[in-house]
Amino acid sequence: VSPADLRVRALSGLPEISPGDPLGELIARSASATGEDIVVISQKVVSKAEGRVRRLSEVAPGEEAKELARRTEKDPRMVELALTESRAVIRAEPGVLICETNDGWICANAGIDASNTAGEDEVTLLPEDSDASARRLRQELLEHGGQAPAVVIADSFGRPWRLGQADIAIGCAGLTALDDWRGRKDAAGRELAATEIAVADQLAAAADLVRDKDSNIPAAVISGLGELVIADDGPGAKSLQRPAGQDLFR
Amino acid sequence: VSPADLRVRALSGLPEISPGDPLGELIARSASATGEDIVVISQKVVSKAEGRVRRLSEVAPGEEAKELARRTEKDPRMVELALTESRAVIRAEPGVLICETNDGWICANAGIDASNTAGEDEVTLLPEDSDASARRLRQELLEHGGQAPAVVIADSFGRPWRLGQADIAIGCAGLTALDDWRGRKDAAGRELAATEIAVADQLAAAADLVRDKDSNIPAAVISGLGELVIADDGPGAKSLQRPAGQDLFR
Repeated sequence: VSPADLRVRALSGLPEISPGDPLGELIARSASATGEDIVVISQKVVSKAEGRVRRLSEVAPGEEAKELARRTEKDPRMVELALTESRAVIRAEPGVLICETNDGWICANAGIDASNTAGEDEVTLLPEDSDASARRLRQELLEHGGQAPAVVIADSFGRPWRLGQADIAIGCAGLTALDDWRGRKDAAGRELAATEIAVADQLAAAADLVRDKDSNIPAAVISGLGELVIADDGPGAKSLQRPAGQDLFR
Repeated sequence: VSPADLRVRALSGLPEISPGDPLGELIARSASATGEDIVVISQKVVSKAEGRVRRLSEVAPGEEAKELARRTEKDPRMVELALTESRAVIRAEPGVLICETNDGWICANAGIDASNTAGEDEVTLLPEDSDASARRLRQELLEHGGQAPAVVIADSFGRPWRLGQADIAIGCAGLTALDDWRGRKDAAGRELAATEIAVADQLAAAADLVRDKDSNIPAAVISGLGELVIADDGPGAKSLQRPAGQDLFR
């Protein structure tokens, strides 16, 4: 089924989010998303609501972090947090620290981010398990909104070979994250070359287009793709992680 | 200026495109895009209109292609075309051939694609210079539609670390391809971490969400982001190419 029309609405008017805030309930109250919609939520507000916030002034960097901070010319306390949040360092160069997080995401600084936080030395960590966060948020949306839209948790990642950041999915629930076209034919009956489509990532990218980075728009609602929403929570965004053994760029 | 609402409309009803067809005129007739819109066009139809189509039965693979075909377990004629279209081979493994194209894009098989072509052994090459193609199409849209929307030429690329393909921009005109946020502050007055946003890639991804791979939907019109459309053609999608010297993953 091909949708003819897709709408992306920015969700504004949410209060500043603090640890313990009922994020799903707050979104349900202002979003009016249906069970055919996809709600894309910024990692930053999810991390805040989950208390995944640290003060740099309270971090004591160890020897490994200090040495890596020298190599990367980064704040040793940021590096200490990145190491704690990671299971591997993929690249370390002046100005660049690319990690594989404990949750399996490959990104700069293990996804630790200092912008849009409350305090001067506050940073956010990624959620511990963003798929679990998405499932919880979907459940809260259902409880407080009466509908179960799909949920995507999005973050801005850099990419090899290409400049600039684009939003990708680090968590999702109720969504076919990776649309499998293998075996399907094109209009002329030939096997398709594009065999798997990273639908969750493309939804994250579409939502980012309506979110100004400086205006704290924490979520967007995407309508018109109801065929992607599934009743069960599905395999999550981790189904988008390429197994290390199949990856040529680590 | 933050847009509150974004719309993506699939453009259907275009005839099958053949070499020499006036693609811009055909799109102008059925799209009714304004100067505030962004028209995202599939690489495949642009290549067809430009005659960037080859018959595998007419390709005679050389020695280098034959050797590389053995290593990658690919059709030697496909490999011959990929080598002709590339300035470097980035990775070659069984089942995988990742090239840097003459136009600077890093992708599988130099972007050569066998699906959705007319003949049994026909393949499409990428446009020779997709930014030039985008500029031409924008000019044709202006001539035949009276308006100059921005134009993005999109293709589906695989990504390191992540499974599935996502659409990215290989050409554009009239668009700020890379939105530079450096120096801007967040709501709390702190410098932003996400400093450059790959807007053109995110537009390509959003458009792909309304294009079924098997139904030949060759374009989509995105409305609600008029502030991204610029009067001159701008730097094109090549401004998204990360210089080799700054790239840690080649």
